[in-house]
Amino acid sequence: MSSSDIFIGETIGTAILILLGGGVCAAVTLKASKARNAGWLTIAFGWGFAVMTAVYIAGPLSGAHLNPAVTLALAIKDGEWSNVPTYFAGEFLGAMIGAALVWVAYYGQFHAHLTDKEIVGGPGAQATAAKSVEAQEQGAGPVLGIFSTGPEIRHAVQNLATEIIGTFVLLLAVLTQGLNAEGNGLGVLGGLITALVVVSIGLSLGGPTGYAINPARDLGPRIVHALLPLPNKGGSDWGYAWIPVVGPLIGGAIAAGIYNVAFA
Amino acid sequence: MSSSDIFIGETIGTAILILLGGGVCAAVTLKASKARNAGWLTIAFGWGFAVMTAVYIAGPLSGAHLNPAVTLALAIKDGEWSNVPTYFAGEFLGAMIGAALVWVAYYGQFHAHLTDKEIVGGPGAQATAAKSVEAQEQGAGPVLGIFSTGPEIRHAVQNLATEIIGTFVLLLAVLTQGLNAEGNGLGVLGGLITALVVVSIGLSLGGPTGYAINPARDLGPRIVHALLPLPNKGGSDWGYAWIPVVGPLIGGAIAAGIYNVAFA
Amino acid sequence: MSSSDIFIGETIGTAILILLGGGVCAAVTLKASKARNAGWLTIAFGWGFAVMTAVYIAGPLSGAHLNPAVTLALAIKDGEWSNVPTYFAGEFLGAMIGAALVWVAYYGQFHAHLTDKEIVGGPGAQATAAKSVEAQEQGAGPVLGIFSTGPEIRHAVQNLATEIIGTFVLLLAVLTQGLNAEGNGLGVLGGLITALVVVSIGLSLGGPTGYAINPARDLGPRIVHALLPLPNKGGSDWGYAWIPVVGPLIGGAIAAGIYNVAFA
Amino acid sequence: MSSSDIFIGETIGTAILILLGGGVCAAVTLKASKARNAGWLTIAFGWGFAVMTAVYIAGPLSGAHLNPAVTLALAIKDGEWSNVPTYFAGEFLGAMIGAALVWVAYYGQFHAHLTDKEIVGGPGAQATAAKSVEAQEQGAGPVLGIFSTGPEIRHAVQNLATEIIGTFVLLLAVLTQGLNAEGNGLGVLGGLITALVVVSIGLSLGGPTGYAINPARDLGPRIVHALLPLPNKGGSDWGYAWIPVVGPLIGGAIAAGIYNVAFA
Repeated sequence: MSSSDIFIGETIGTAILILLGGGVCAAVTLKASKARNAGWLTIAFGWGFAVMTAVYIAGPLSGAHLNPAVTLALAIKDGEWSNVPTYFAGEFLGAMIGAALVWVAYYGQFHAHLTDKEIVGGPGAQATAAKSVEAQEQGAGPVLGIFSTGPEIRHAVQNLATEIIGTFVLLLAVLTQGLNAEGNGLGVLGGLITALVVVSIGLSLGGPTGYAINPARDLGPRIVHALLPLPNKGGSDWGYAWIPVVGPLIGGAIAAGIYNVAFA
Repeated sequence: MSSSDIFIGETIGTAILILLGGGVCAAVTLKASKARNAGWLTIAFGWGFAVMTAVYIAGPLSGAHLNPAVTLALAIKDGEWSNVPTYFAGEFLGAMIGAALVWVAYYGQFHAHLTDKEIVGGPGAQATAAKSVEAQEQGAGPVLGIFSTGPEIRHAVQNLATEIIGTFVLLLAVLTQGLNAEGNGLGVLGGLITALVVVSIGLSLGGPTGYAINPARDLGPRIVHALLPLPNKGGSDWGYAWIPVVGPLIGGAIAAGIYNVAFA
Repeated sequence: MSSSDIFIGETIGTAILILLGGGVCAAVTLKASKARNAGWLTIAFGWGFAVMTAVYIAGPLSGAHLNPAVTLALAIKDGEWSNVPTYFAGEFLGAMIGAALVWVAYYGQFHAHLTDKEIVGGPGAQATAAKSVEAQEQGAGPVLGIFSTGPEIRHAVQNLATEIIGTFVLLLAVLTQGLNAEGNGLGVLGGLITALVVVSIGLSLGGPTGYAINPARDLGPRIVHALLPLPNKGGSDWGYAWIPVVGPLIGGAIAAGIYNVAFA
Repeated sequence: MSSSDIFIGETIGTAILILLGGGVCAAVTLKASKARNAGWLTIAFGWGFAVMTAVYIAGPLSGAHLNPAVTLALAIKDGEWSNVPTYFAGEFLGAMIGAALVWVAYYGQFHAHLTDKEIVGGPGAQATAAKSVEAQEQGAGPVLGIFSTGPEIRHAVQNLATEIIGTFVLLLAVLTQGLNAEGNGLGVLGGLITALVVVSIGLSLGGPTGYAINPARDLGPRIVHALLPLPNKGGSDWGYAWIPVVGPLIGGAIAAGIYNVAFA
């Protein structure tokens, strides 16, 4: 693969991943969305099929890493590091583009959700306005959640451990796809299986931290959240931002190490 | 493929697509349906598997476009326009037949829903009748929603943008199916992957407008809604009708352009 | 295939189909089931994966018709009728065995549900007992629903039409599996695609009648319902029993006719 | 396969199976989990995709039995018993590792759930403390349910029958995967189909006992539950522990017997 194919593939693929992944979070979270409150199973399938769609689109161009933890693990496995910066650049750029596209697709929904128009003004406006401030603050949390992950219980060691474990499972599944009992890899089925592995991780390990399992998926959109002109958007929770970057990289590296010892 | 195979395949395939896709909307919306209020995940899987069923049935005859945006994008990609009118004709005719079949399959449910029999008559009938008018008007919206899409927030630019983005994702996924890292396309797996891409778009990008992403899927059934002898059915919202026609065509064209530049 | 393989395959396969299909209805309906009230999407996936499991198990022995409408449609398509009685016999016998196994697997749940132990006796027992009769009658409907289908709105013409349409879609999908644009059939993927077609029919066309789309699936378990020593089980609704037998056979025959004209 | 590959593959694979399977139970059960109360369909898909993930990872090393009932049934089918102890050892060790990893990933959630911090202390603490004991006891049941299965209605014969039937279906599906009408097995599709069979068993036969269908899946984590320093965890229900061990082994043996008579 040429460097330009890698960069273009990773940028397009990660943009689609985050457009669809952030999109399902917007769909389930925001006011005036038909999918509002559709539940965790919807989130998990939404992210899984986002991965599937992006993998099949970007696969022919770049191999569809779409995740720095995947790029790192494959580099460790193969001992080949020359394309890593190109992959990382495309992944972070794509993630930021994808997050901005979520904002475009849900523009009116973001506005309605954050400005809380329904309850401002009219008789009793003073009491309503006071309530509105609180409601807006409650709204700001979920809106950050459309861009980036956050923990239910803030505990750095556990949060890091959960991200390490989730990414370890993802990467062990990705690395072993080239192998099977019949001696040939999963082939074209691989994108679907990877997607369902991501659904599995979401259902089973997403409860505590929201399963970033991908540094670009979390940091890129967090930067976009900080930059976008959203009213009442609240902070971008930079204190937590290192965990979904460091945890997935550690998890991917451990998976590559175990793969090289036990499977290769 | 012969013109008659194309026309028959697109007509049968699009009829089945809309029968099943409109069917799940009827199932979730109408009174006296066992699936009432089954939620957005049900809608998204329902439309996705509708696509899958229709694609596998129509594929051998016509290649299963089932969507003018697909036909347009493939024509741009291949520079081959001669069969486009035949595809369009089959797609719109099929969509209308499918919408009529939804009405047949849910005949009693439409009647019960729109005439609101449960609350008319008996003691207090006058108050009930007044309430009934309001209830019928509330009912009319969802009934149009069984046939055609409508926005949660009516904003032409955003609504158009959301339809463009959704259809762009669909078409980029469809156009790249002939490619993959192993050098061969998805083959028989393609219909399933396309279906799950449609589930993904529904979950992630369906919240604002209900994801038409297909001019025939929206306009054909809207015409049928206008023609059917449904009591209290309300208007067919013709003011919105151009958006789910124009948006998907633009989205498909953009996908074909990017495909030809970056992937071909 | 030998006659004994056909008979054994259809008996085992249809027994597993009904064990799993009736099982999900029991799981969602009965008291003291962990899956109680899990909703329509659960029912539709439950029946779909029941079909998948049974098709992959019975396929090597009998080709896995598991449904007299499938047997009829294939006989019309191929003009080959000699094995039809063997298929029918295995399908009905298997369906009855499967329904009996649901009763075994959910024995305590049936008892708890139908005898309504929780609310009988204690202080206020007289009022409770009166309520209990009504509750038992309300319970009896869903219990028949574990065995056989029933309409939400009892209207023979519509109910028949809905069953015809649903089975028509199923059979057109099954008959075209041997074809595709690449010139080869779905192969081992076929069982999964058929399963998801059944999920689709359930989601989209199951609302009015509960989608029997299979005479053996409905009549066999209805007979078992009539025979089992269930307390307070209510009637077996024989007045409706002909519709889910006749409708699917008509739908399958129409699909075979259209297949022979348009696809063969 | 070498003994060490079998042992390592079964240990890693079963650890991942239980990490993801126990994980989804934790996600749906515990306080401060984003997936809390996500319902039975989530549980069933969670366990199914857990099986899929573990099967594709462990397949190349050990063939991915991950279940003593699978090992027993394959030994009966093939008459080959020499590796059985190695499989069993890896399966039980892996199940215990997986259960411990669930505890790590959900550490804070377990603590919050079992210590019930929200309602202890403050004004009215005495009444709250009394309530807290009851709440903690109610909590303890679901927490054991994250590790091991338990019946809704405690009835040894029925519970055993339900586990036998469920495991019989699983093993008949696994054993017939090497066969199909085209003369070749499911190949790389097998892991996905097996996963969906497990979803099917969960949806359809999981209602009464929670479908262990795997002695290692139940006994290994039950031991871990007994050993872990969880506050207020309650008993490990050893009186029930034999049923999800004996039932699956009987079900697997029956499936192998029927396979050898009817399919081989």
